[in-house]
Amino acid sequence: MKNLAVIHGVNLNFTGIREPSVYGSQTLDDINLSIQKHAEALGCGVTIFQSNIEGEIVNFLQQCYSGGIDGIVINPGAYTHYSYAIRDAIAGMPVPAVEVHMSNIHKREEFRHKSVIVPACTGQICGLGADGYLLAMDFLCGKNPCP
Amino acid sequence: MKNLAVIHGVNLNFTGIREPSVYGSQTLDDINLSIQKHAEALGCGVTIFQSNIEGEIVNFLQQCYSGGIDGIVINPGAYTHYSYAIRDAIAGMPVPAVEVHMSNIHKREEFRHKSVIVPACTGQICGLGADGYLLAMDFLCGKNPCP
Amino acid sequence: MKNLAVIHGVNLNFTGIREPSVYGSQTLDDINLSIQKHAEALGCGVTIFQSNIEGEIVNFLQQCYSGGIDGIVINPGAYTHYSYAIRDAIAGMPVPAVEVHMSNIHKREEFRHKSVIVPACTGQICGLGADGYLLAMDFLCGKNPCP
Amino acid sequence: MKNLAVIHGVNLNFTGIREPSVYGSQTLDDINLSIQKHAEALGCGVTIFQSNIEGEIVNFLQQCYSGGIDGIVINPGAYTHYSYAIRDAIAGMPVPAVEVHMSNIHKREEFRHKSVIVPACTGQICGLGADGYLLAMDFLCGKNPCP
Amino acid sequence: MKNLAVIHGVNLNFTGIREPSVYGSQTLDDINLSIQKHAEALGCGVTIFQSNIEGEIVNFLQQCYSGGIDGIVINPGAYTHYSYAIRDAIAGMPVPAVEVHMSNIHKREEFRHKSVIVPACTGQICGLGADGYLLAMDFLCGKNPCP
Amino acid sequence: MKNLAVIHGVNLNFTGIREPSVYGSQTLDDINLSIQKHAEALGCGVTIFQSNIEGEIVNFLQQCYSGGIDGIVINPGAYTHYSYAIRDAIAGMPVPAVEVHMSNIHKREEFRHKSVIVPACTGQICGLGADGYLLAMDFLCGKNPCP
Amino acid sequence: MKNLAVIHGVNLNFTGIREPSVYGSQTLDDINLSIQKHAEALGCGVTIFQSNIEGEIVNFLQQCYSGGIDGIVINPGAYTHYSYAIRDAIAGMPVPAVEVHMSNIHKREEFRHKSVIVPACTGQICGLGADGYLLAMDFLCGKNPCP
Amino acid sequence: MKNLAVIHGVNLNFTGIREPSVYGSQTLDDINLSIQKHAEALGCGVTIFQSNIEGEIVNFLQQCYSGGIDGIVINPGAYTHYSYAIRDAIAGMPVPAVEVHMSNIHKREEFRHKSVIVPACTGQICGLGADGYLLAMDFLCGKNPCP
Amino acid sequence: MKNLAVIHGVNLNFTGIREPSVYGSQTLDDINLSIQKHAEALGCGVTIFQSNIEGEIVNFLQQCYSGGIDGIVINPGAYTHYSYAIRDAIAGMPVPAVEVHMSNIHKREEFRHKSVIVPACTGQICGLGADGYLLAMDFLCGKNPCP
Amino acid sequence: MKNLAVIHGVNLNFTGIREPSVYGSQTLDDINLSIQKHAEALGCGVTIFQSNIEGEIVNFLQQCYSGGIDGIVINPGAYTHYSYAIRDAIAGMPVPAVEVHMSNIHKREEFRHKSVIVPACTGQICGLGADGYLLAMDFLCGKNPCP
Amino acid sequence: MKNLAVIHGVNLNFTGIREPSVYGSQTLDDINLSIQKHAEALGCGVTIFQSNIEGEIVNFLQQCYSGGIDGIVINPGAYTHYSYAIRDAIAGMPVPAVEVHMSNIHKREEFRHKSVIVPACTGQICGLGADGYLLAMDFLCGKNPCP
Amino acid sequence: MKNLAVIHGVNLNFTGIREPSVYGSQTLDDINLSIQKHAEALGCGVTIFQSNIEGEIVNFLQQCYSGGIDGIVINPGAYTHYSYAIRDAIAGMPVPAVEVHMSNIHKREEFRHKSVIVPACTGQICGLGADGYLLAMDFLCGKNPCP
Repeated sequence: MKNLAVIHGVNLNFTGIREPSVYGSQTLDDINLSIQKHAEALGCGVTIFQSNIEGEIVNFLQQCYSGGIDGIVINPGAYTHYSYAIRDAIAGMPVPAVEVHMSNIHKREEFRHKSVIVPACTGQICGLGADGYLLAMDFLCGKNPCP
Repeated sequence: MKNLAVIHGVNLNFTGIREPSVYGSQTLDDINLSIQKHAEALGCGVTIFQSNIEGEIVNFLQQCYSGGIDGIVINPGAYTHYSYAIRDAIAGMPVPAVEVHMSNIHKREEFRHKSVIVPACTGQICGLGADGYLLAMDFLCGKNPCP
Repeated sequence: MKNLAVIHGVNLNFTGIREPSVYGSQTLDDINLSIQKHAEALGCGVTIFQSNIEGEIVNFLQQCYSGGIDGIVINPGAYTHYSYAIRDAIAGMPVPAVEVHMSNIHKREEFRHKSVIVPACTGQICGLGADGYLLAMDFLCGKNPCP
Repeated sequence: MKNLAVIHGVNLNFTGIREPSVYGSQTLDDINLSIQKHAEALGCGVTIFQSNIEGEIVNFLQQCYSGGIDGIVINPGAYTHYSYAIRDAIAGMPVPAVEVHMSNIHKREEFRHKSVIVPACTGQICGLGADGYLLAMDFLCGKNPCP
Repeated sequence: MKNLAVIHGVNLNFTGIREPSVYGSQTLDDINLSIQKHAEALGCGVTIFQSNIEGEIVNFLQQCYSGGIDGIVINPGAYTHYSYAIRDAIAGMPVPAVEVHMSNIHKREEFRHKSVIVPACTGQICGLGADGYLLAMDFLCGKNPCP
Repeated sequence: MKNLAVIHGVNLNFTGIREPSVYGSQTLDDINLSIQKHAEALGCGVTIFQSNIEGEIVNFLQQCYSGGIDGIVINPGAYTHYSYAIRDAIAGMPVPAVEVHMSNIHKREEFRHKSVIVPACTGQICGLGADGYLLAMDFLCGKNPCP
Repeated sequence: MKNLAVIHGVNLNFTGIREPSVYGSQTLDDINLSIQKHAEALGCGVTIFQSNIEGEIVNFLQQCYSGGIDGIVINPGAYTHYSYAIRDAIAGMPVPAVEVHMSNIHKREEFRHKSVIVPACTGQICGLGADGYLLAMDFLCGKNPCP
Repeated sequence: MKNLAVIHGVNLNFTGIREPSVYGSQTLDDINLSIQKHAEALGCGVTIFQSNIEGEIVNFLQQCYSGGIDGIVINPGAYTHYSYAIRDAIAGMPVPAVEVHMSNIHKREEFRHKSVIVPACTGQICGLGADGYLLAMDFLCGKNPCP
Repeated sequence: MKNLAVIHGVNLNFTGIREPSVYGSQTLDDINLSIQKHAEALGCGVTIFQSNIEGEIVNFLQQCYSGGIDGIVINPGAYTHYSYAIRDAIAGMPVPAVEVHMSNIHKREEFRHKSVIVPACTGQICGLGADGYLLAMDFLCGKNPCP
Repeated sequence: MKNLAVIHGVNLNFTGIREPSVYGSQTLDDINLSIQKHAEALGCGVTIFQSNIEGEIVNFLQQCYSGGIDGIVINPGAYTHYSYAIRDAIAGMPVPAVEVHMSNIHKREEFRHKSVIVPACTGQICGLGADGYLLAMDFLCGKNPCP
Repeated sequence: MKNLAVIHGVNLNFTGIREPSVYGSQTLDDINLSIQKHAEALGCGVTIFQSNIEGEIVNFLQQCYSGGIDGIVINPGAYTHYSYAIRDAIAGMPVPAVEVHMSNIHKREEFRHKSVIVPACTGQICGLGADGYLLAMDFLCGKNPCP
Repeated sequence: MKNLAVIHGVNLNFTGIREPSVYGSQTLDDINLSIQKHAEALGCGVTIFQSNIEGEIVNFLQQCYSGGIDGIVINPGAYTHYSYAIRDAIAGMPVPAVEVHMSNIHKREEFRHKSVIVPACTGQICGLGADGYLLAMDFLCGKNPCP
C-alpha cells in the first residue's frame, strides 16, 4: 500500500471562506474529506498537513523524507511564487511530488504565473479546482498508466 | 454520453521516435490506443487529431465548435509558446479545454516555461507523461469530482 | 479602375460567432457584403481572401504581386503579433497596404498592442470596428485626399 | 447636425515647414482648409484647435466636455508618447475620440511606436497622411457604417 | 465602538534600537503607548500585535477575520516587499486595511520602493514617521471625513 | 499660525465629474470646502491652487518658496508619473511636502504605480479618498505627534 | 554517395524579385541551379524543397528522417526568428543541419539577430550570399576537413 | 555678426537658490551677465529666454526659426529627460543647437543620465558648470576651430 | 575571548543527506564538530544555531544583539535569495557578519547568483565547501591579519 | 594572387589543450597547418596572427589596412562578446572580413550568443569546427561563387 | 603654467583615415597640431598620448598621477563603453578630467550612448568635432570662467 | 611543497594610493609582504604577478598552466566585470582558483556586483580586506580542512 502526503500551504485553511469567487465555495474540510475518500478508493494511505508558516512546511517535508511517504501532493499557496526554501526541500526528496493549484494561475495577476517550486517537482496540475488533488493522487498511485 | 476531442500539435507524431530521453519511448500510436481504451472505460466518445500545421489545428478547433464536442484535450507541441492563433480559437470555445504537456516544461529551456495558450484554457497538466491525457479526460468527464 | 485585395487572417471567419463582446456581432459574411457594396460605390474591384494558415496568406500576397492588385487591406488576426513571414511578404509589395483591426488593440492584453507587420505597411486603422475596412478602401482609392 | 473638434498638438503648427520629408509638404493651413471643406461635405460643424502647451490641450478638452461636441479627432504630436494628462482628460469624455498620426509611427524611432493616449480613445489611424483626419471625421459622423 | 488591530511586522520590535538614523529614535514601546492613547482619544479599541514570523502574521490576520476587528493598520517591515502570503491574507479581509511605513520607502534602496501587499489594502501612508499609525487610525475611525 | 498650500494638479478640477467610479462623486469644490473647514479647525491658514499646466504648478511652488508657506500638500494628478520638473521644484523647498492620491494608485494601471515626485517629498498618502488631504494637513500642523 | 536536402523557407521563392537591395538579384532558380551543379561537382545527391507553410517544412523534415538524407541545409526565412516547431523537428534529426542566411542578419533589424532554430543545428553561415549554401554543402560532404 | 539664443528651461530661474550643493551658488542673473559679457567679447548678439512651461519653450524655439538666430544653446532642466516636444522643435531647426548641463548628469540619479533631446542637437556639454554656456557659445561662433 | 555565532539557515540540517553531489557528503553534525574544534583552536567561544523558519533566524539575530556576540557567520540557505527580513536584522547588528555558502553560487541556477543579504554583511565566502565556515571564523577572530 | 590574413584572438593558442570537449582536440598548430595547405591549394597568400592582447589585434588590423591584404578571417575568442575596439578597427577596413567560431556559440552560455563584432563583418560562420576557417577562405577567394 | 595631458584611445590614430563620414576628414596629426597651437595660445604645457591597448592607457594615467599634470582630456574611443579599468584609473586622479567625443554619440548605435567612464570625470563634451578638445583645454585652464 | 600564484589585476598597483576610503590604506607592497610571510608560514611557494593589461594576465595564466602551479589567487580589479578572456583562461586551468576582492563588491555600484570570472573559479572571497588573500591561500594549501 502506498502512502501519500497532501500539503496545503499558506491561507489554504481559509479556502471557501476567503475570496470564493476565485477559489470556489467548498471549504478545506470538504476538500480533505474528498481526499480521504479518494485515498480509500485508491487503497492508499494519506497524511494531510496545513501550515501558514513556510519553515514548518519545510520541516514537514523533511519528516516525509524519513517517514515512509511514497508521493507528495503540494499546493503551496502564495509561497509558490517565492519560496526557494520549499523548492530546495522538495529537490531533496527521493519520491515524486506534484504541485496543484485549484485556480488557473495563468489567468490571474502576472506574479502568480510563475512557480519557483515546480522545477523541483515531477509536474503540475492547475485550474481543475479541487479535482486537481484527486488527479494528482491518481497519478502518484499509478492508476490507469499509459504504456 | 460525452464526446471529447484530443489534439496533438506539431511534431507529436514523432513521439517515441524523436528525443525519447525527453518525451519517453512510447509512440503516438501507443498513446492514442490508451486514450481510446480510456474513453471506453469512461463511457465517452473521443476524436483524435494531429497536425503539424498551425492553421489546420485552428480549423479543427472551429469544426469542434459546431460538432458536438463537450471538452478538449490539447497538447500544442512547440506552438504552445507562440501560437496566439490557437489561443484565440480556444478562447472562442464554449466548452472546457485542458492543455497537456508530457514533460515538465518548467524544467527545460526558458522559452518552454511559458504557454501563450493556457490563459484561454480551463487548466493545464504537465510533467505527468502520457498519463496527463487520461487525467484530463477524467476531469472533463467529471469523474470523482470534489464537492 | 483600381483593384483592391482584402485579406482576413486567422479566426476572422468566426467573427460574430466567437467572442462578440470583443469583436462585435456582425458576421464575416455581413462585413464582406459591406466591403463589396463599398467597392461598387467607390468604383473599384475587390478580391476577398480568408485563411487560418499563415503560409497561405503569404502565398496569396505573392499572387497579388503579379495579379494586378493596386492596394491591400489586411487584418491578420492573431498573426499580427508574431508573423514576420507576412511582414516580409508585404515588405516586398510595390503597392500600399493598410493594416486594419476592428477592436482597439491598445485597450486589450499587452501582447496585442504590438504588430510586427505594421512597419511593412503604409499605415494602420484600429478600433473603428468593421468601418475600418471601408475607410482603408477609401484611402487606397484616393477618395477625399488632403492637399 | 454633429459637431466635431479637431485638436492639433505640439509642433503641428510647423507641419509642412519642419521636416517635410517625414510629415509631407502641406502646411497646417492647407490641412485645416481640407478639414473645413470635408466638414461641409459631411454636413457637420467643426472646431479646430492647436496648442504647443500640454495643459492648454487639457483645458480645451474640458471645454469640449460641456460644449456640445459629438466627437474628437486628436493628433497630440510628441505628447502622444508621454502625456498621461491628455489621456486622463480624454478618458473622462462621454464622446468618441480618434487619435490620428500622419506618419506611420511604427516605422520611426522606437519611442514613437507607443501612444499612452490611445487606450483612452475609440481607435487610431496612422500613416495615411492628412487623409487620416478626414477618415476619422467620416467615422465619427457615421458615414458608410458597416452592419 | 470600533475595534482596530495594529500589526507590526518583522524587526519592528527593534525600532529605536536598530538604525535610528533611518527609523527615528523612539522605541516600539513608545509608539505603542501613543497608539493606545490615540485609541482612547478616538474612543476605539485597539489590539497590537508584533511578530518576526511571516506565517504568524497570517495567522493573526485570520484571527482578526472572525474576531470583531473593524479595521487594520499594518507595517509589515521587510515582508512588505515579498510576502504574497500576507497580501493574500489581507485580500480576504472584509474590513479596510491601511499599510504604514515610517520612512519614505521611495527615498531608499530600489527594492523598498515596491510593496506587494498594498494592492490588497485600502491605501498606504509612508514617510510620516510614527504619526502614520495615528493618521491611519483616524481614517479607519472615520474622523473628519470629507464629503 | 502655520500656513499651508494645497495644490491640485492636472484634471483634478474635473473630480466628481470625470470617472466618479474611480475618483468618488464629490466635486473639487466640495473637497476644497472640507479643506478650508479643516484648516479653520486646525487653526492654520491654507492657500488652494489648481492648474492643468505643469509649468504653472512649478511657478506656484516657486512662489511658495518666498511666500511664507510652512507645508505643502500636493496631488499632481497624472503629472505624478512623469513630471521631473515638479519633482525638482519640490526638491528645492525648505518645507515639508506630502503627496496625496485619492485612489490607491497601486490597484490601477501599471504606469500609475510609480511616482517620480515622491522621492522629493516627505511622504505619501494614497487610497484614503479626499480624507488624504485632511490627514496630510494634520501631519504638517503637527497634530497628535508620536513621541 | 551522400544525399543532402536543401530547404528554402518562407518567401525565399521571391528571392531576386522581392527587395533585391537586401537579398541580391539572383532568383531562387539561379541559386538552385548553382546548388545542383555544386552537388554534381561534390558527387552527392541533393533534394531541394521550398514552402511558405511552416508545418509543411516540419513535414518535409520528418520525411528526411526516414528518407536516407545525410545532411540538411536550411534557410528558414522569417521562420528563423520564431519557429520553435522547426527547431524541434531539427532537434530530432540524427544528421547534421546547417542554417544559412544570405544576408548578415546581425546588420539588420533587431528581431532578425536571433535565430530560435540555430541551437538545434550544427552551425550557421550568414552574410556570404548564396555562396553560403555551397559552403554548407562542402562542410556536410566533408570536403577539405581540418585535422 | 552672429546672433545666438540661450534658453534656460524649467527651474533654472532658481539656480543658486535651489540646491546649491548640486548646481553651484551663482544665480541665474550672475550667469546671464557672464553670457552677455561673453557675447560682447565674441562680437555676437545674444537673446536669453527662460520659462518653466514646456510649450512656451517650444513656442520660443519656433520664433527662433524665423527670427534670424544662427545658433542655440539650451539647458532644458528636467525637461531634458522626457520632453520629446522640445526634441521635435529642435529637430526642425536649420541651425546648430548645443545642449548644456551645469552638473555632470552621469554622476546623479539614473533618470538624469539620459537626454531625449540630445539626438536632435549638434552636441552636448555637461559637468563644466556655467562655463558650459560660454564654451557652447565659442563653438557656435566658430572660435578656435580645428582644421 | 571572542564569542562567535554560527547560523545555519533553511534545509542546512539536511546537508550531506540532501543532494550530496551539490553540497558534499559531510553532515551538518560533522561540520558543526569541525566548527567547535576550530573555535577551541582559535580560543574563542561559539554558539551554533539552525532553523528552517525565517522569522526564528531573525529572532536569534536579535538575541545576538544583546548577548555578547562579537561576530556572526551565516549561511542562510535558500533565504539568501529573498529574505530582506534577515538582511534588515543583520543591518542592525553592531558586529561584523560574514555570509558563507559551501557551493559556488555563481555556477548554479540564475536565481542563486544574487544574495539580498550580503549588502548588509562585511563580506562573503563561497565555493570553498565547509572550509568557508572556518575561514570566516579566522577572519572574525583576526587571525593572520594583513597590515 | 590574393593575400588573406587569419587572426586568432585570445586563448586560441590553447586550442586543443584547454577544454577539448568544447573546442575539439586539434591544436592551433594543426589548424594553422591546414590553413597554410588550404591557401596553397587556393593559390593565395596567407598571414596568420595570434595575440591575447586586444589592442595588439587592433594594431594588426591597422597594419592590414596598408599591407596589401585582400580579406580577413577572424576568430576573436572571448573578445567577440565585448570588444567594440576590434569592431571599430574592422569597420574601417576596405576589405571583407569573416568572423569564425569553431563551436556553435548559440548552444553555449547566454553571453556567448552575441557578437559585438559581427555587425562590422561581411558575415559569420560558426559551429563547423576548424573547417570554418577553410570555408571562410574559400569565400574570400571567390571559389565556387553563386551567380 | 598649467600642464595638461591629452589622451587618444583605441583606433583614434586612424582618425581621418577610417570612416571619415562619421569622424571628419582631419587626421590625428592635424588635430594634435591644433592642440599644440592652442596650448601655446593658452600658455600651458601639453602632453599627447595615444594607444590602442587599454592597459597602457591605464599605465599612462598612473604616470600622470605623479607627473605634474594639472588636467586631463581623454577620448577613450570604443573603450568608452566598457573600460571600467580606465574609469577606475581616472577615479583615482586628484585633477579634473574631461571626456571628449568628436561625434554626437547619442545619434549613433545604442551601445555608443553610454559611457562607463564619464561618472569618474568632471564632465563631457560630445558632438562638437575636434573643437571639443580645444574647449576642454579652455575649461581646464580656467579661461573665461563664469562667476 | 605547494606552489601558489597570486595575481593582482588592473589598478591594484595603486592600492593604498588611489581611493583609500574604499580599498584601505595599505599599499600593494604591504600586502605582498604579508602574502610572502604567510606563504612561509604555510610552507608553500608563491609567485606574485601584477599587470594593468588584460591580455598579459591571460598570458601569465597560460604560463601557470605549464609551470608547476598548484593553486591560483586572483583579484582581477575592474576586469572582474567584463573580462570573459580571463574567465576562459581560468576555465582551462587544471588547478583551483579563488577570486578575491578586498571590498564588499555587493555594497558598491551596481556594475561591481557581478563577476564574469567567478563561474570559472572554485570560489570567491570578498569584503574581508587584504585578509582575503591569506584566507584563499589557507584554503588552497588545505589548512584546517573540514571533514
